[in-house]
Amino acid sequence: MARIVMKFGGTSMAGIERIRHVANLVKREAAAGNQVAVVVSAMAGETDRLIQFCREASSLYDPREYDVVVASGEQVTSGLLAITLQGMGLNARSYMGWQLPIRTSAAHAAALIDGIDVAVLERVFDDQGIAVIPGFQGVADDGSVSTLGRGGSDTSAVALAVAMKADRCDIYTDVDGVYTTDPRIVPRARKLDIVTYEEMLELASVGAKVLQTRSVGLAMRENMPVRVLSSFEEPDESRPAGTRRGTMIVGEDYMQSREAQGKNMERQLITGIAYDKNEARISLIGLSDKPGTVAAIFAPLAAANINVDMIVQSVAREGEKRDLTFTVPTAALAHSVDALTQAKDEIGFEEILTDSNVVKVSAVGVGMRSNAGIAARMFEALADRGIRILAIATSEIKVSVLIPEEYTELAVRVLHTAYGLDAESDA
Amino acid sequence: MARIVMKFGGTSMAGIERIRHVANLVKREAAAGNQVAVVVSAMAGETDRLIQFCREASSLYDPREYDVVVASGEQVTSGLLAITLQGMGLNARSYMGWQLPIRTSAAHAAALIDGIDVAVLERVFDDQGIAVIPGFQGVADDGSVSTLGRGGSDTSAVALAVAMKADRCDIYTDVDGVYTTDPRIVPRARKLDIVTYEEMLELASVGAKVLQTRSVGLAMRENMPVRVLSSFEEPDESRPAGTRRGTMIVGEDYMQSREAQGKNMERQLITGIAYDKNEARISLIGLSDKPGTVAAIFAPLAAANINVDMIVQSVAREGEKRDLTFTVPTAALAHSVDALTQAKDEIGFEEILTDSNVVKVSAVGVGMRSNAGIAARMFEALADRGIRILAIATSEIKVSVLIPEEYTELAVRVLHTAYGLDAESDA
Repeated sequence: MARIVMKFGGTSMAGIERIRHVANLVKREAAAGNQVAVVVSAMAGETDRLIQFCREASSLYDPREYDVVVASGEQVTSGLLAITLQGMGLNARSYMGWQLPIRTSAAHAAALIDGIDVAVLERVFDDQGIAVIPGFQGVADDGSVSTLGRGGSDTSAVALAVAMKADRCDIYTDVDGVYTTDPRIVPRARKLDIVTYEEMLELASVGAKVLQTRSVGLAMRENMPVRVLSSFEEPDESRPAGTRRGTMIVGEDYMQSREAQGKNMERQLITGIAYDKNEARISLIGLSDKPGTVAAIFAPLAAANINVDMIVQSVAREGEKRDLTFTVPTAALAHSVDALTQAKDEIGFEEILTDSNVVKVSAVGVGMRSNAGIAARMFEALADRGIRILAIATSEIKVSVLIPEEYTELAVRVLHTAYGLDAESDA
Repeated sequence: MARIVMKFGGTSMAGIERIRHVANLVKREAAAGNQVAVVVSAMAGETDRLIQFCREASSLYDPREYDVVVASGEQVTSGLLAITLQGMGLNARSYMGWQLPIRTSAAHAAALIDGIDVAVLERVFDDQGIAVIPGFQGVADDGSVSTLGRGGSDTSAVALAVAMKADRCDIYTDVDGVYTTDPRIVPRARKLDIVTYEEMLELASVGAKVLQTRSVGLAMRENMPVRVLSSFEEPDESRPAGTRRGTMIVGEDYMQSREAQGKNMERQLITGIAYDKNEARISLIGLSDKPGTVAAIFAPLAAANINVDMIVQSVAREGEKRDLTFTVPTAALAHSVDALTQAKDEIGFEEILTDSNVVKVSAVGVGMRSNAGIAARMFEALADRGIRILAIATSEIKVSVLIPEEYTELAVRVLHTAYGLDAESDA
């Protein structure tokens, strides 16, 4: 017997036929003797419809009342799933965020979960019951309805799993797992059976649609195993031997214990190739070599809440002018240029160049920690295809390069092959 | 300054444009210095959509979960109206049924209001605020969401008005008031400026779409003045002199005090003509004259929860067979015949005849109490047109006849004229 949270996204809840399918998946877990709490999203499209209403009502809508409106979408699907489960003879009931309660901060429309009271759930489990809980919503200390922001249902599910000390949190979605890279670019991309939290966060650009980043961060802090799988996929027992369902997202200690058991022997140094087109390059030309220049550049950006990513400083002889290149989110490019231009006198640069036609391509893998030569292999592979590297950044588990956007697909394919990630044959 | 409840139905809340119009009506009352609580229905069609979901999920849906689903409709419109009012610079906030709370019985999908806590509202009024409250919903003692049954928002509004000791409850709908009869049948029907609760209840057949009967009963018990008016109608100040907006529904004491003040001098003996096609006639032929026969007839019907209305017993000499005719709701006709047939031996009748092609036409008015000849005028007017009367029933404020259904329109028009209710000219 295991204690699990099952979370279903909007596509899985879109209409009664799909809800019936979800109910069958829940029934199967319950029939296996597991204690099950289900977290649901609103029907696909419903949250957008409700947000649109709020915007039409007033462009400066009160986030507190916005939460009252948009929380209704998950309320509906929770009740409908409970009804459907009951119709199958199961002992199911819904519990709204304010009923459990799921206590949150008062930051309406972007609330943080403070805690979840599981006393009600323990009684439900004692009665062999199934609890259905709306994702995305909670209740603030003043008794007002709150929501966690878009995609918050994943976070609700992980937080609930942590609170009820679940064995794992299963996130059902419309893809069958996390891939080594974007399968639309590389048909030979492979589904990963297992990744670490850190890798999942770095792979966000190719996996963002799979799982909300915030929920991965929470799972990592709390060491809660998360499994991503498709609600439209066949169950394990009917799959070909040797294939696992979905992708497990776990801590490194879990991964190491598996390796100690002789599993994961075939583990690659690199887990996947990510890319992110949402970066723009800024170059400041003709900077003076005086102390404090770099601080003068980044202070106004930090004040404007702009996240600076890759930073490359040209090497210059003492006393000579030098250049500095870095990236910011594309959406913040205009704002960044404004902030830098206003600070031009303090910084002291001659020219500011920008380029939003760039892409950051990254090789991600915890395996690279103990292996040299990972970065070198990347530079070689890209050089072989004549792809110019505009900037480089490395971390413990990631090597990233900034390249011209037009080379995105080529670079991803080349690196996927270079690191031995291609599947044996096209799936 | 007055303290008022304003209630808006689904047609008035159907979409942001209409909600904006509603917000303007609310703003006008608040600007006049009134303390205002607003009760809203779900958008027209939304409750039906949600009920349909529940039915599809399971034909035997749990009313408790049904309430979770359907209560969401009013939650959405409450939040949207609060946002719209805020957008106009007003201090408005929504309060769900569980937040006030509006305490109800645990009879899910048909809950009764036990009480409403107005402490929160008093604070809102102290701050010159406007409270927006979803109709139709409340919270049961165990903390579960409850709903009052279809049309329950009118009842929510009246109950809230009673709890907050409002001066009146304004029910905004898509008609401009209560009429002397159905204007589709009698183009010269007049809008009534004022009716008593008792008259309103008797006029339910022509006014049922205007106001839920249950809310009128509550207003009558609590002596809460209710005004029915159209949310699409022009405000009083822009109306022609001498015309009032909507229809006031009040107690007889209020009516008498107006008459003592010299108002309502032109008041008619009869307030309106109602008709009800939802009645079916049952005749039991050849009943024996033994004691207890009538009791034997009505006991099985009462046991089956069937409301018997008009009852006519034929006069027979002692020892002779006699007949008994009465009416039941059309929907209960088959059930009634079953119950009577099963009890045939105890009752002792020769034949059972039924007819659902009948209509009950009623003249309603508190003025008839002090006036003889009201019934006689009805019988004469119908006889002049050759309309056969199948049964007669009278009460303190009503004379009803059962006639063949095909004469409905003719009888209503004839009686409307006979009692002097026709407007001077077609409106």
